[in-house]
Formats: sequence, C-alpha cells, structure tokens
Amino acid sequence: MASEREKFQKADLTRQKILDVSLTLFQKQGYERATMRAIAQAAGLAPGAAYYHFETKEHIIFDFYQRSFNDHLPGVEKVLSTEKDLKRRLAGVVRMHMEVAKPYHEISKVLFQTAINPDHPLSPFSKESGPLREKNIDIFRRVVEESSTPVPEKLRGKLPEILWLFKMGIILYWIYDKSPDQRKTFRFIEESSALIAKLVALSRLPGIQGFSERILAMFHKYKTF
Amino acid sequence: MASEREKFQKADLTRQKILDVSLTLFQKQGYERATMRAIAQAAGLAPGAAYYHFETKEHIIFDFYQRSFNDHLPGVEKVLSTEKDLKRRLAGVVRMHMEVAKPYHEISKVLFQTAINPDHPLSPFSKESGPLREKNIDIFRRVVEESSTPVPEKLRGKLPEILWLFKMGIILYWIYDKSPDQRKTFRFIEESSALIAKLVALSRLPGIQGFSERILAMFHKYKTF
Repeated sequence: MASEREKFQKADLTRQKILDVSLTLFQKQGYERATMRAIAQAAGLAPGAAYYHFETKEHIIFDFYQRSFNDHLPGVEKVLSTEKDLKRRLAGVVRMHMEVAKPYHEISKVLFQTAINPDHPLSPFSKESGPLREKNIDIFRRVVEESSTPVPEKLRGKLPEILWLFKMGIILYWIYDKSPDQRKTFRFIEESSALIAKLVALSRLPGIQGFSERILAMFHKYKTF
Repeated sequence: MASEREKFQKADLTRQKILDVSLTLFQKQGYERATMRAIAQAAGLAPGAAYYHFETKEHIIFDFYQRSFNDHLPGVEKVLSTEKDLKRRLAGVVRMHMEVAKPYHEISKVLFQTAINPDHPLSPFSKESGPLREKNIDIFRRVVEESSTPVPEKLRGKLPEILWLFKMGIILYWIYDKSPDQRKTFRFIEESSALIAKLVALSRLPGIQGFSERILAMFHKYKTF
C-alpha cells in the first residue's frame, strides 16, 4: 500500500504534469480559449481527475505563480543575508524574480493578456491574488527594514508596497522587452533601483520632505490594491 | 447626381455606422473574436462594402481613436489659450481627453485587452500608432513651450514625451478605476499634475539637478517607443 508520502509525491507529479501541458496549451490557444477538458486530455487524465487537482484554470496559474515564488526564495534569502545597501537589496530581489521567470517570457506574454484585466482573478491587484501579493510585499518589508540605508520613519511603513508596485512595473517592462534575453530589463533593474535608493535618501532633505510626504499620501489615497 | 461633398458625407456616415456597430460587437464578443464579416452584417452592408471603408478591424479602431482625438481638440485649444501655469495646462489637456473618453469606459476595457499586447498594432507604442502618438506628443510640446512655468533647458526637449507617457499612465489608472463615473481618476489627474509641475520646479535646485538629468538619460535609454 502506498504511504502518505508516496501519495503526496504522486499527486505533486500529476499537478506538475497538468501545469506543464496547460502552459503549452495556453501558449498555443491563448488562456481564454483553452478548456479544462482539453487540458485533462493533453495530460492523459479523465476530466474528473484534472478537476480533483485544480478546480479551475485560475488555480493552475496560481499554482504556477506560487511555484515561481518558491523557486526565487533561495536567491532572495541569499541577497537579503549578504547585501545591506538598499539599492543592492532592492535590485537583488527583483533580479532574482526575473531570473526565475526567464524561461517563461513567452507564456508570460500570453497570461499577461488576461492578468491585465482589472476584473480578472489573475490580476495582481485582485482579491484572489491577495495572499501571494502579501508574501511578495513581505519580502520588500525585509528589503527596507534590515537595510543599512537610513529610511525616514514616515516612508518606512508604505515603502514596501511601493517597491512591490515597482516590481510590477519591471514585469510590465520585461513583457515589452524585445532585447535578446531581455537584457535591457536587467540593466533597467540596476539603474532604477539605484534611482529609487537615491530618491529615498533625498527624501530626508528639508526641501524635499514635504514633497515626498505628498507622494506617500497620494499613493495611499489612489492605490487600487 | 451626388456632389463630391454629398458623397463624402455619405461615406462618413457609413464609416460612423460601421464604427458604432463594431464597438457594440467588440463589447459583446471581445475584439479578437468579432470578424469583419459579422461587422458588415450588423451594419447591413456586404462584406466588400465594409472592406472598402476599413481594410481591417485595426483600421476601425484607429478611426475611433482619431475621432476621439479630434473631439478633444476644442477643449485642448481652450485650455492652452487660457491657462499659462504648467500644472493647469497639463491637468487641463489630460482632463479633456478623459472627458471625451467617458462614454467609452466599458469598451475601452475591452480594447485595452488587445492594445496592451506589445506586439499588436493597437498598442500605443506600436509603429502603426506612431502618427497619432506624435500628434498627441505635439500637444504636450505646446503644454511645455508656451507655459509661464520656467522649465530647465535640458528638460524641455524630453518633457513632452514624458508627459505623454504620464497620460498613458492616467488612462491605465482610468481603466482600473471602479469609482462612480471614474471620479477618482479626475481627482488623480489634478493631484498628479500638481506633483509633476512641482517636480519640474524642483529639478532646478542644484542638489536635484543631477538626479533629474539621470532620470532623463534613463528615460531616453529605456523608452520603448
């Protein structure tokens, strides 16, 4: 008789298999057009078996996002334990995400068409994306809090969310990036992280302080997540 | 016999009719799924007649964009001739665009799904969108050049494109805006325009100057249009 552990491993392999064939199918047909039935068939499963693992197509993609998140964690931990400087911590964790995403540039373009719909669960701003979004924001909390770069008190609380939004902007840029291996995106991460760190430092100057507090207030007032 | 003028007017009415039924059809079926054949049928035309007016679905939407652009010009002219302050000129021209777009919020969400595809002609960054993009950037050139707010020489050349990108950001925010009549977007235009004007003013300070030149250089290096 199969042990609990063996059963779990088998289920995980099946989930991985479903994920793999789904991505291929989404690439070919687009996300909206591919059906759960077609996914099950491509994975060599009865439709019921596919639904047992994933209630909906969205669940498959959330699993994909979660796996990508898990895959980038070792790199993130390394950056957070070795880098103290805000610029390098920020650039490091964003770079780790994009490194893991590299093999998925084409499929990301496809999924993006759906995720960009503000009413869709796959939107990064949706209620359904909330748990993974929070885990991501927590990483930026650590980027800020354990950094050697002094961050003004008033900025400290909101900065993690702003930096997460910055990462969303980087992903948008990456989707549009047509340079070989999206090398432009990686350079952009370095330069824009340096710029943000500089902006955080500048925000302590008396002439700038009021300005930076105004940006924070606006961010809080108009954010959509 | 119909005069040239009558012929032109009749053609324009037919184009308007095709545009109207297209928008209804795109709303119902999505942009990708609606065919030129279905559009012709809904407009009560033979397919050939529809193709005579618009080679492709994209041409219909470009016509829609061009009409919206034309519709917002009187408002723009009024703003540019009465307002001298950079903040008010900027907020004014962007507001005029969003006023004209108001009745099209729902259909814009649908078109957005296609326009956000970086490889699609309908993307605002595409080669095909180039002529209309340039006309839009020209408006921001006038926003900057005839303003009473002093704009540093180095900023002057690039600022119009940056302000156009700002308008693209506003449209993105508007698409996502769930507040009644997208009122949040209109408040956001006012506040963010004030912030940008303030930033332009700040950019003349010695401590900030290098920073602002760095942003400009990055913009030039990484822009995708």
